[in-house]
Amino acid sequence: MRFDNVLAVDPIDGEFVGSVETEENVITGIRRIPGKREFERILMPGFVDLHTHGSVGVDTLSMNGEALKKWENFLYAQGVTYFLPTTMSSTPSVILSAARVVRDYIKNKTLTSVGGIHYEGPYLSLKRKGAQNPELIRSIDLKEIEETLIESVKLITMAPELEGFSQAQELVQKRGITLSLGHTDATYEDMERAYNHGCHRITHFPNGMNTLHHRELGCVGAVLSLPFSVEMIMDGIHSLPGFVKLIFGIKGPKKIMIVTDTIDATAMPDGEYELGGQKIILKNGRPTLEDGTIAAAVLVFSGAVRNFREFAGCSLKELAMVSSLNSLNSIGIKDRGRISEGYRADLVLLDENLGVRETILNGKTVFQS
Amino acid sequence: MRFDNVLAVDPIDGEFVGSVETEENVITGIRRIPGKREFERILMPGFVDLHTHGSVGVDTLSMNGEALKKWENFLYAQGVTYFLPTTMSSTPSVILSAARVVRDYIKNKTLTSVGGIHYEGPYLSLKRKGAQNPELIRSIDLKEIEETLIESVKLITMAPELEGFSQAQELVQKRGITLSLGHTDATYEDMERAYNHGCHRITHFPNGMNTLHHRELGCVGAVLSLPFSVEMIMDGIHSLPGFVKLIFGIKGPKKIMIVTDTIDATAMPDGEYELGGQKIILKNGRPTLEDGTIAAAVLVFSGAVRNFREFAGCSLKELAMVSSLNSLNSIGIKDRGRISEGYRADLVLLDENLGVRETILNGKTVFQS
Repeated sequence: MRFDNVLAVDPIDGEFVGSVETEENVITGIRRIPGKREFERILMPGFVDLHTHGSVGVDTLSMNGEALKKWENFLYAQGVTYFLPTTMSSTPSVILSAARVVRDYIKNKTLTSVGGIHYEGPYLSLKRKGAQNPELIRSIDLKEIEETLIESVKLITMAPELEGFSQAQELVQKRGITLSLGHTDATYEDMERAYNHGCHRITHFPNGMNTLHHRELGCVGAVLSLPFSVEMIMDGIHSLPGFVKLIFGIKGPKKIMIVTDTIDATAMPDGEYELGGQKIILKNGRPTLEDGTIAAAVLVFSGAVRNFREFAGCSLKELAMVSSLNSLNSIGIKDRGRISEGYRADLVLLDENLGVRETILNGKTVFQS
Repeated sequence: MRFDNVLAVDPIDGEFVGSVETEENVITGIRRIPGKREFERILMPGFVDLHTHGSVGVDTLSMNGEALKKWENFLYAQGVTYFLPTTMSSTPSVILSAARVVRDYIKNKTLTSVGGIHYEGPYLSLKRKGAQNPELIRSIDLKEIEETLIESVKLITMAPELEGFSQAQELVQKRGITLSLGHTDATYEDMERAYNHGCHRITHFPNGMNTLHHRELGCVGAVLSLPFSVEMIMDGIHSLPGFVKLIFGIKGPKKIMIVTDTIDATAMPDGEYELGGQKIILKNGRPTLEDGTIAAAVLVFSGAVRNFREFAGCSLKELAMVSSLNSLNSIGIKDRGRISEGYRADLVLLDENLGVRETILNGKTVFQS
């Protein structure tokens, strides 16, 4: 494939106008045209969403392969070339069954954007449960964890203050699975200990955690003080635009990862839905539990990318970091997320308003508008 | 005067080993010795404390000139060459009377480190009163404010969410007096409005204000998002060392001003004291109200300087910013706070542990150990 007249945006080398060529599934040619400023399309690394519970009526905990395909196709139209279906807290057997659906799906496809599964829970703080079902939040049980860690598991969110966390961290990391801290009422010291033992990632910061205080730094203080990378839900509701801008100023473009945290109600009409065994009311595009607690989100990834650009006032180069590269790096994937020779051709072609026009996965067009 | 073999620390040009000469009250000669690393003493700009209610048994609201002299001498031994006695909330007549004591004191002295008075209140938030006496916190009354603004008033702390604040801000600033925001329950918008109208200063951040939340940025969010300069009480109690380090990382060395917020009990034995009409219990060096609320501080300025260096892990150049220049600049004083030719010779000579060995005010030694 060949993309002429594009503004190519690499998160490391920056932006340039020119051409990009791919052969098979790899980027093989980069041609910069110095001084040229006009272009037809923007070419960015394909978007990555590591925290999404569902969309278009599909939910991670209840989907089969066919439903997952429907979801995947929907995300192609959003420019997403890598994502992790994400579970809510549930019983080991239910989350294991979701992990098996994902495992079998990946096995049977030669081309897919499904990278694996993200377990958000069930080993979380009851006090910081957010929209997680309190009846399904569990104490750490090492044997149980071990049994649920099948090959499709890429990411697990846990609360570091729980009893047995250190052993759980060691177990998870030894298996090559990335640990993320979230839904937590930890102290600064709990967070720091997890950081020092190799966990450098935060789930939907700063939602579901205790806030900063000058006499107890807590979770937010630890996240701001230590070089954690943070997921942020970019709907302007979970975090105000001004908060996003503030965190962008503090953490910088290399430590933020856009996620959607969407649920099955995304891209669906207002009405009642289900999330981890709890009723969700979608009204005016805003999903809540019956008691009014914000429950996940319904924005689409390309909208999240546009929001971030507006909230943070960032460059396209920085946008390529927060929408793709940082997330990939957080789970150890190094072969994509760049527009540079030798990298995998996972790309998204956008118009000047960052509307998705074409999505390329592994060198093949999977969406075109 | 001539200081040989010193490590001179200028907040702009940085550190150098060499000699510094003064004539009359001005720095006239700077001689750097390139490559030389050994020195006998550290020479820094004299320390500045813009927020201190008292020390050695002296309290701003009740002192006479003789008591103020005792306080001033105590601060010379701390390396302080400029300070503002600071009132607590009180009636207009009581604070005005304190301002007159300060005015007459300055008039009658040819050499003094007393720069004027800082009114902390009485136009503050009842909800964020801290150790201010709630019975003496008042609504904004422009006529009353006007009557209390005599020539010795240099700084006023007010809460920006109060009715009439905008007019009060205009009134204060037109008189050339600096406004500082503190003891406030303001919204982000209140803070931003005050900033945009020329108030760029925060009183003892983040004590006495609402904290950061991702869906209401509030005072702390505004302070971190906008380029406010912040007083910080450097006792390790009002803000944890880790919080100081975090804020140093976020705001940088140009936006932090060390203050002590000391009360009359400073450098006094444990016992009972008074602050703005309320009983203070000093126990193990920690002052509280009878209900346990932290009430101001009892650390000494040179200790605060050492604390900051340790908490923030900063350079001496940065230490010279936060202990002197930033505070001076915040109230519009430009002729001192530097070790550079032509600047006023307000200096402090320190040993390698930052112990005060000599204090020079306007070219004259006022303390020597």
